[in-house]
Amino acid sequence: MTNPIALGLDFGTESVRALFVDLIGNEVASAVVPYTHGQITKTLPGTGEEIPASYAFQHPLDWVECSAKAVQEGLKSGGLQGEQIIGIGVDFTSCTMLPSLKDGTPLCMVDEFKSEMFSWPKLWKHHGAQTQTDRINELAESRNESFLSRYGGIIGLEWFFPKVLETLEKAPEVYRATEVWLEGGDWYVWQLVGGTAETLPRSTCQAGYKAMWHAQDGYPSSEFFAALHPELENVVAEKMPGRMLAPGTSAGGLTADMAKKFGLPAGTPVSASIIDAHAGVPGAGAAEAGAMVLVMGTSSCHMLNATSEQSVPGVAGIVEGGILPDFFGYETGQAAVGDAFDWLRKTLNQDNFDELTAGAAALPAGAEGVLCVDWMNGCRTPLMDGAVKGAFLGLTLNHGPQHLYRALMEGSAFGVRWIADILIENNVPVTLFIATGGLPHHNPLLVQIYADVLGKPILVHPSKQGPALGAAILGVLAADTEHQYFKSTTEAINTMAGVQKGVPGREGILVQPNADTHAQYNEIYSQYRNAADWISQKK
Amino acid sequence: MTNPIALGLDFGTESVRALFVDLIGNEVASAVVPYTHGQITKTLPGTGEEIPASYAFQHPLDWVECSAKAVQEGLKSGGLQGEQIIGIGVDFTSCTMLPSLKDGTPLCMVDEFKSEMFSWPKLWKHHGAQTQTDRINELAESRNESFLSRYGGIIGLEWFFPKVLETLEKAPEVYRATEVWLEGGDWYVWQLVGGTAETLPRSTCQAGYKAMWHAQDGYPSSEFFAALHPELENVVAEKMPGRMLAPGTSAGGLTADMAKKFGLPAGTPVSASIIDAHAGVPGAGAAEAGAMVLVMGTSSCHMLNATSEQSVPGVAGIVEGGILPDFFGYETGQAAVGDAFDWLRKTLNQDNFDELTAGAAALPAGAEGVLCVDWMNGCRTPLMDGAVKGAFLGLTLNHGPQHLYRALMEGSAFGVRWIADILIENNVPVTLFIATGGLPHHNPLLVQIYADVLGKPILVHPSKQGPALGAAILGVLAADTEHQYFKSTTEAINTMAGVQKGVPGREGILVQPNADTHAQYNEIYSQYRNAADWISQKK
Repeated sequence: MTNPIALGLDFGTESVRALFVDLIGNEVASAVVPYTHGQITKTLPGTGEEIPASYAFQHPLDWVECSAKAVQEGLKSGGLQGEQIIGIGVDFTSCTMLPSLKDGTPLCMVDEFKSEMFSWPKLWKHHGAQTQTDRINELAESRNESFLSRYGGIIGLEWFFPKVLETLEKAPEVYRATEVWLEGGDWYVWQLVGGTAETLPRSTCQAGYKAMWHAQDGYPSSEFFAALHPELENVVAEKMPGRMLAPGTSAGGLTADMAKKFGLPAGTPVSASIIDAHAGVPGAGAAEAGAMVLVMGTSSCHMLNATSEQSVPGVAGIVEGGILPDFFGYETGQAAVGDAFDWLRKTLNQDNFDELTAGAAALPAGAEGVLCVDWMNGCRTPLMDGAVKGAFLGLTLNHGPQHLYRALMEGSAFGVRWIADILIENNVPVTLFIATGGLPHHNPLLVQIYADVLGKPILVHPSKQGPALGAAILGVLAADTEHQYFKSTTEAINTMAGVQKGVPGREGILVQPNADTHAQYNEIYSQYRNAADWISQKK
Repeated sequence: MTNPIALGLDFGTESVRALFVDLIGNEVASAVVPYTHGQITKTLPGTGEEIPASYAFQHPLDWVECSAKAVQEGLKSGGLQGEQIIGIGVDFTSCTMLPSLKDGTPLCMVDEFKSEMFSWPKLWKHHGAQTQTDRINELAESRNESFLSRYGGIIGLEWFFPKVLETLEKAPEVYRATEVWLEGGDWYVWQLVGGTAETLPRSTCQAGYKAMWHAQDGYPSSEFFAALHPELENVVAEKMPGRMLAPGTSAGGLTADMAKKFGLPAGTPVSASIIDAHAGVPGAGAAEAGAMVLVMGTSSCHMLNATSEQSVPGVAGIVEGGILPDFFGYETGQAAVGDAFDWLRKTLNQDNFDELTAGAAALPAGAEGVLCVDWMNGCRTPLMDGAVKGAFLGLTLNHGPQHLYRALMEGSAFGVRWIADILIENNVPVTLFIATGGLPHHNPLLVQIYADVLGKPILVHPSKQGPALGAAILGVLAADTEHQYFKSTTEAINTMAGVQKGVPGREGILVQPNADTHAQYNEIYSQYRNAADWISQKK
C-alpha cells in the first residue's frame, strides 16, 4: 500500500509550483518552474508587437507545459510514483482571463489572432481597462445594481468584465471571434479534465470574486450588459458556457493525454480551481468562521469566513462558498505590502533590508513621530480606490531611513487594523489572525508590529506555500467523495494544515502583542485614520 | 597713493572669514579660519562638563584670535599693507549672546564660572530655552504687548531674552554675576574699539531682530520683565548698558592692542555689527525698497527693505534701520533649505547630489505627483512654529529618489512664494528677487524652480560671500563720514556690490521663469497650501 499524496498546483505571476503533501500535511516534494515566457509586458511572443506600459499578458501554453515539468520534477525529486497521487488542486492568479474557441483553443494560438494582443490571456495586473471599469461602476451605481454592495460599492480595474469590455472596445474582432470567455484557472482545469465547452468547470471562487457572480442571482443581467454596450447584451448566455463548481469539488478526472504528460494516472480527480490567495485560507489551517488569514506578500489578501452575508464598505468581495463550502467568504486586501517595502528599500538605495530592519527594530512604536499612509499602489479595502497615493508625515531632520521603514511597516499594520475594525463594526466577527505567505517568515518585526497594532496575537503559519498547500487540500476534497480519507472538510484542513507542536516543519509561531505598545499604537492609529481621511478626500 | 581696501569680517557657526574688497567691489583677498573650539556641543573646554543634546556654545576668544589670524593671512595672501584698510565691518550669527563683566571679560573666562555651561556664549542654535520662550509668548500675548506684532505674533526660541531667562532659571548664580548681557557681535566690536560698558556699541539690527528693541519704544517694559520673573525686572537698566548704533555707523577706531594683533592701523573705523544674514542685503547690491534678497544656505533668510512698517503675519522681524538706514527692514525665513537637501541625500544613501540632480532635472514640474512640505526643521515664515513637521505626499511605486528630491526643491520654492505672497497681501511690495549664499551657485536647478514657482526672474548675485561683502561695505560706510569715497549709501552699495556686465567675477545670472511651467506650478502651489494648512492644524 503506497502512501497517498495530494498535489497542489500553484500558478503565480512568474512561475508555477507543484507541491506534494501526504495526508497528515507533510511536504514530501516541491518544484518550481518559471514560465518560459514569463510575464509578457514588452512585445508579443513571435510577432514582436509592442505592448503599452500598463498591459500584461501570459502565455497559456506555459501553464500546461511548465506545470507538467514541475510535476515531473517533483515526482522525481521526492522519489514518488504517479500512482500515489490521489487528487489535484489548482490555485491560480486572478482575474487572469482569456478568450478561447469552443474546443478550448486559446484565441492567441489561432494564426489570425497571434499578433493581436487582446487575444492573449490578460494577467491579473493588466491595467488597460480603466475607462471601462469607470463606466461599469457608473452604470451599476446609476442602476442601483444589487451586486455592488457585495464588492464594497465598486468593481475593480483588474476584474473580469472590465477586461471583456476593454477587448470589445479596443479589438472588436477579437471579441466577435471569441466563443468562450473564461478565467485562466478554469481554462487550465478544463484542459486537464477535457470535455465540451458546455461542461467546462467554472470556479465559483473566481466567478464570485472577479465576475460579480452570485449563488442565487447569477451574473449581472443582460439588461445591465446591454446598457453597457449593445454587443455585450448576451455575453453570459452566448460566450460563457460551463458548470459552476465550488473549489474542493471534482471537475473530473485527468485525461489520458494529460496523464501521460504529467506522469500521473488517468482519471486522477482534479478540483475546480480557486484564486491563489483564497487557497491560502485552507492552506493556513483556517477551517472556521472568524479566523482571518493574512496572506502577506507583494500585496496582501486578508480572507475570512463568516456565517452570514453582511454589507461591509470596501470589502473586495463576499461570495457564498467562495473559499469553503457552507461559509460566506470575505476577501479584503492591501494593494502594496512587500512591493512597498521593496520600493522603499530601492528608493533608499539599500542593497538589502539588513540595516533598515536593525534600525527600525531599535525604534519605539510610532517611529519617533513619522507616520506613513502606505497607499503607494492605491487602497483596496476599505476605499477600493486605486488613485489614492501614499505619504510620509511628521518628518524632521533627525529622522533617517530606519524611521521611514518602520513607519511604512506601521502604516501597513494600521491598514490591517482598519480592515478588521470595519468588519467587526459591520457584524462580521474577527476572532483570530493567521499570517501566511513569504513575508511573515522573512520579516518577524512586521508581524510583531501587526500584533501590537491589532492588540491581538498572530499565529504565523509554518507553511511557506500556503496557497499550494490549500490547493493540495482541495485536491483531496475533490477525491474524497466517499470520505475514505477524512470525515469532514474541517478535519481535512485541521489534519493537513493545522499547526502541530513538536512536529518539525509544522510548528507555528504565536506572536503575542505587547499591551503597552498596543496602547501607544491606539493613539497613533487615530492619527493615521485622520491622515488617511484627509488624503483620500484631497487626492 | 595706495588702493583703499574695505575689510569684512563674517562670523559663522564654524569659522570666521576675512574678505578684502576694493572700492569698486573687487575681491582682492580672502581667508577662512575655523574656530579652534568649533561649536561646543559635547563637553565644555578644559573642564569637560557634559552638554545636553539641544545645547550649543562657542568660545569667545576664538572670535578674536581666529579673526586676527584670518586678517593676517588675508593681508599676506593678497600682498596688502595694513594701511590700505580704510574700514572694518562685522557680521555675526545671531542671536549668539553671552554674559560678561563690565570690563568686557566674558563670564566663562572667570575661573569661578568656567565649569558652569550657562556662563558660556550660547550659539544661535542653542535650543535650551523652549519653556522660557513659551512663557514669554504667553505672557506677551496675555498682556497684549505691542512688540508682538512686529515679530509675526511670536518670539523665537533662539532669541535673546529666552536665553537670558533660561540662564536666570537654570543657573541663577550666573545671572547674578553677569554685569552685561550682550550679543556676540556687539561684544566683538567692543573688544576691537575698547571703551567702557556704558559706551559699548550695540547694533540696532541684533537688538531689533532678536531682543524686541524698537527705535521709538525701546526694549519691552520693566513691568513685562517683572511679570516674567521678579529678578528680571531691571535687566535692561542694570545689565544692558551701551549705545544703540545702526550698522554702517562707526562704533570707534581700532585700539592699539587690537591694531597690533590684526596688523592694521590703530584707529581704523569699525562699523557697528550686523546679523550675518542681514549683511547679505547690501552684499547682494540691494540698495532699494522691494528687492528681496534670498540668502540661501543651510537655512534661508529672505530680507527686504520697505518704506513703511506694516503688520505681516509670521514675519520674523520688522526693524527700523535694521538693515539699512532710512528703511524698515523685514526679515523672513525658512528653517531648513540646504540642511533639508542634505538630510534627504543622506536618507537616500547618496554620496553626492549628482544622480539626484540629474534625475530631478529630467522630471516635469510637480515631480509627477509628489508633493513635499519641507518643514523638517519647523516653519519660520509665515507660521513661526518650530513644532510643525515635514511631509511627502502623492507617493506611488513608480516614484524614486529623484522625485523626492525634486519635490523637496519645489516645496522649498512654494515656501518662498508663500512668504512673498503674504508680504504683498499686507502692502509690503516685493518687486525683485536676488539670490545669494552658497546654494544658488551650487544648485542652478533650484533657482530655476524658484523662478518658475514665483513666475518672476531671479538675479543670482556673483558674490559667493554676500554677508562678508555686505560687512565690508558697512565698514566703508562707517569710515566714510565725510563722503570722501561715495556720495550716498545707495552709491556705495551699487558700486561695490551691484552686478556688472562684462566684468569677470561681477556678472550676475538672471534666471527667467518659464511661463508654462509657472502656470502649472500655480495649480500645484494651491495643493501645497492645502497640505500645509492641514499639516499645521493637525500637528
